[in-house]
Amino acid sequence: MSKTLTTREENYSEWYNELVVKADLADHSAVKGCMVIKPYGYAIWEKMQQALDKMFKDTGHVNAYFPLFIPKSFFSKEANHVEGFAKECAVVTHYRLKNGENGEGIIVDETAKLEEELIVRPTSETIIWNTYKGWIQSYRDLPLLINQWANVVRWEMRTRLFLRTTEFLWQEGHTAHETAQEAIAETEKMLEVYATFVEQWMAVPVVKGIKTANERFAGAIETYCIEALMQDGKALQAGTSHFLGQNFAKAFDVKFTNKEGKLDHVWATSWGLTTRMIGALVMVHSDDEGLIMPPRLAPTQVVVVPIYKGDEQKALIDTRVKELMQTLKSMGIRAKYDDNDNARIVAEFLKSHPKVESVNFPSLLPKSAALGVANVVAVPEEEGAAE
Amino acid sequence: MSKTLTTREENYSEWYNELVVKADLADHSAVKGCMVIKPYGYAIWEKMQQALDKMFKDTGHVNAYFPLFIPKSFFSKEANHVEGFAKECAVVTHYRLKNGENGEGIIVDETAKLEEELIVRPTSETIIWNTYKGWIQSYRDLPLLINQWANVVRWEMRTRLFLRTTEFLWQEGHTAHETAQEAIAETEKMLEVYATFVEQWMAVPVVKGIKTANERFAGAIETYCIEALMQDGKALQAGTSHFLGQNFAKAFDVKFTNKEGKLDHVWATSWGLTTRMIGALVMVHSDDEGLIMPPRLAPTQVVVVPIYKGDEQKALIDTRVKELMQTLKSMGIRAKYDDNDNARIVAEFLKSHPKVESVNFPSLLPKSAALGVANVVAVPEEEGAAE
Repeated sequence: MSKTLTTREENYSEWYNELVVKADLADHSAVKGCMVIKPYGYAIWEKMQQALDKMFKDTGHVNAYFPLFIPKSFFSKEANHVEGFAKECAVVTHYRLKNGENGEGIIVDETAKLEEELIVRPTSETIIWNTYKGWIQSYRDLPLLINQWANVVRWEMRTRLFLRTTEFLWQEGHTAHETAQEAIAETEKMLEVYATFVEQWMAVPVVKGIKTANERFAGAIETYCIEALMQDGKALQAGTSHFLGQNFAKAFDVKFTNKEGKLDHVWATSWGLTTRMIGALVMVHSDDEGLIMPPRLAPTQVVVVPIYKGDEQKALIDTRVKELMQTLKSMGIRAKYDDNDNARIVAEFLKSHPKVESVNFPSLLPKSAALGVANVVAVPEEEGAAE
Repeated sequence: MSKTLTTREENYSEWYNELVVKADLADHSAVKGCMVIKPYGYAIWEKMQQALDKMFKDTGHVNAYFPLFIPKSFFSKEANHVEGFAKECAVVTHYRLKNGENGEGIIVDETAKLEEELIVRPTSETIIWNTYKGWIQSYRDLPLLINQWANVVRWEMRTRLFLRTTEFLWQEGHTAHETAQEAIAETEKMLEVYATFVEQWMAVPVVKGIKTANERFAGAIETYCIEALMQDGKALQAGTSHFLGQNFAKAFDVKFTNKEGKLDHVWATSWGLTTRMIGALVMVHSDDEGLIMPPRLAPTQVVVVPIYKGDEQKALIDTRVKELMQTLKSMGIRAKYDDNDNARIVAEFLKSHPKVESVNFPSLLPKSAALGVANVVAVPEEEGAAE
């Protein structure tokens, strides 16, 4: 059988890199550090989004959308924040291209230079708190519980698919509260939501904790996190929830009239979980045979592969499988009838192995293995039994 | 009653601008031309996404995600494409900020200049076709039916919330086919999907047609579109589907071995629908009283406002409404019990109008009107009947 995957023992890091590409989860792109999330990988993200989004809404949050760009000056307003992100900012400086006059093709139009550079958001605290200033006047406007699904950009020199990419997808929650106590409770609640999601949907146990000052989010008072253990014995950060104190409210002058009629700065939290979690999923569950997916997030939960000799058998199987697929669908199981590539491989294998006793699918079928389907052993009826 | 909305007759354009902001759908941002989509506006987009996404999947498409950035050189590869988009491109030139040495705050780090500038995608044909080159070898890899939900940026000098913004959200389908005929069929099929969506979900009738050469998508052979009629008698482009011929396949050298064993360039389509449709929704259905939403897309379909005098009445109503909300929820109706702002307004109104006969909610209640709830006339029992 074609065993083309580096084993975990040989090289864990290589194993991961190869598996993500071979399992059709993601691809490197022409843009350094940016990935293409392929349909099968994206389908996992969609499942994650659905589960998380429901948990956010069940805890009283609503979604909104804020600009991709952040004026450079906004960054300077919170000292630690800018310090933390300055080195990884993609900067937009111009807004037009034109044809070069000396045959050098298309060039940047230098007459279309921005007065103030725009940063492609590495995270949205600054643009959001600048907006919240207009939305919050009184305690009646609080708490403000908003989440955003978005892409962000953090310039990375050394990247790995899903785990560390220049552009990634994530959700970022940004909430505003009357008191420190309430904001801390929100920070802890959302960490709990992440822990529940990662344990119950991703089937990955986590350790909850607090980051050291050094690893704290730039601009936070305290960063709570969940960490998951990978098969190489290393921990991977799986979601963070930040208590921001009044730092951003002070930086953007967001005050409210409290119940005593006094003006006070608002208390804040933010929390995020990213496409990195697809990488964690791969690193925790998969093995040297290929991808293994936890059932609740698996885009395809069952693959049916027909084993047959000749068209007559095939027609019989097709009819029977059609019913089976209906039954599975009505049970809410995401099933696929693969009578194409894999069926061809099995048919050819059986032809050249007339006395075969059993077929171990994942090793025989790279495509099924890549789909993360559990091992199946098939015993071709007569030949197997006759031996 | 407070009538603060400019009427359509006075100034249709002003009426739209005011309504979108007053109804809490969107807000202007600190970044010129970029909008903030507020929770209620975003909830409409979520409903649109759910409906469209299901239609795309039912017609065999899958979602994927491609990079936000496009290398400048990619743009030049398809002559008409670059010609069409060059004037509205946001350009990333640097990847780092630093502290200025002369106290000028944070500045762009000139030592971190990109070798090749990156364009923030105005549309993704070029980066996607460069990727498809690695995915397509044989007719067995076709058709490739992929959609992407994403943000895009087209630099605009004159912007209006939803209708024309520098950044907007959309979906973009990009498909690859064996033959011209098949690609044209796909182009037409997706136009049909858009027409069905706009008519059946947005309750907006459309006219299907073909764009003139002048209005054709930059790089397309033919652009199909649906246009909807606004209340000012003007048409608004509501969705476009492009037959791209072999233009992008040739520009990015995407060839496949066809069934006759010969190499040929792949045939392409692309199609998109954007957050502009939220603007269309407002412009078609709303009136001088405020926002009116078609029921299938309305995030809130029913608002229950208690009318009472004194706490005792309120307690009785609360109990009854609790049951009512359960019933509505079980019927799949999105209902909200508003016993806060609006209830207060009604209570105060009734107090100062002891002999009132009927209450016209939308004019009385700007917040309910803003939610797009249908008119409700309440007749307070005794006083109304006694008159």
